[in-house]
Amino acid sequence: MTTLPGSPYERMAVKIVGRGPGDKPSRRERGERLVMDAVVRVLVRDGLDGLSVRRVATEAGVSIGAVQHHFRTKDALLVAAADHVTTQFKTRAEQRTREAMDQQGATAAFLAFCLLLANAADDDVAPSVVWLWYAAKATQQGPVAHAFATGWSETEQFLRRWIEKLFPDREADLEAAHLLAVLDGLAIARAAEPARMPAARADGIVRRHVAQLATS
Amino acid sequence: MTTLPGSPYERMAVKIVGRGPGDKPSRRERGERLVMDAVVRVLVRDGLDGLSVRRVATEAGVSIGAVQHHFRTKDALLVAAADHVTTQFKTRAEQRTREAMDQQGATAAFLAFCLLLANAADDDVAPSVVWLWYAAKATQQGPVAHAFATGWSETEQFLRRWIEKLFPDREADLEAAHLLAVLDGLAIARAAEPARMPAARADGIVRRHVAQLATS
Repeated sequence: MTTLPGSPYERMAVKIVGRGPGDKPSRRERGERLVMDAVVRVLVRDGLDGLSVRRVATEAGVSIGAVQHHFRTKDALLVAAADHVTTQFKTRAEQRTREAMDQQGATAAFLAFCLLLANAADDDVAPSVVWLWYAAKATQQGPVAHAFATGWSETEQFLRRWIEKLFPDREADLEAAHLLAVLDGLAIARAAEPARMPAARADGIVRRHVAQLATS
Repeated sequence: MTTLPGSPYERMAVKIVGRGPGDKPSRRERGERLVMDAVVRVLVRDGLDGLSVRRVATEAGVSIGAVQHHFRTKDALLVAAADHVTTQFKTRAEQRTREAMDQQGATAAFLAFCLLLANAADDDVAPSVVWLWYAAKATQQGPVAHAFATGWSETEQFLRRWIEKLFPDREADLEAAHLLAVLDGLAIARAAEPARMPAARADGIVRRHVAQLATS
């Protein structure tokens, strides 16, 4: 596989992915994954008001105690679901941006990342549904708000650094915030109104936004 | 007051506002308003999981029966809160777009509407918080999903018609969806991450997006 070791892109990819390409999930991570998949399914199906340790245990086919061992409160379940889809997102983002980088270069890799963030790259809207509940809960003061704000500030900074490299003539700070607003707005529409915003339509809007960014 | 009776703008304004400028709220509307203000305050403070008929009654200083007379379920409370902030939004949108239209013309009126939709026009993020819970709940099948999708499709169509009139060279359908994504993304950030997205920053992003729309 062609990579660009040590390039700013590579460093950014490692930063957002959080582990190198050779690392494998630990046994503990594999053990938790069964429960976390169930948390995501219950949250997507029943909403935050229907999310409970009991329902997650039933969904995962494990005891209530086994779920409570990891997550004692509804907020902990919500944060776990958000972390879980974020981890899956990062794995996919690493793979897709790397493929696009190898085949078409840095701008294509950037576009691939944006398409994933907008949930425009496939028909499964579950990650956006989780993220939408997470954003709603973050409107209240507390640990969820803090975790959400940290994650989204980092995402904006990540986009900003990429824009600085790819489009040095642009005002990177403003462009990153503008782009992230588009991607968030599309992801919400994908989750709450998939009929108005099918994946193909979101794809077209992301492409035109990035194309405008690339054209001074 | 200078108005443009019969113009496309005027018809659109009446359509979105739902009543003419001379109409006053009925006695029943004034009676419900007390309870609906309380629904919004409880939803913003306690989240959807904390929203209940009992808490709304306490907050409004009325009996549980008085709240149940209007709203029997949590979903009914949520839809009422969304309707309430939408009605307030429409009243403000009518006023601000009319003022901007009179003073600076149609493009300024369009910009004023967009700034309101992004919650970039003032520091009170309560309407966006309500809307974010409403969007999250709309990810589940049911009456909330239907009401949300209908409202947002109408909003996109409203933007599309305005873009057709103001910027006839543009692909109105795509521009409307793109613009609505930006405004939604900003409104979410205003609600969930006001530190990253203060009103002034959202204001700047809306202005630059509309300015790009106006520049072929």
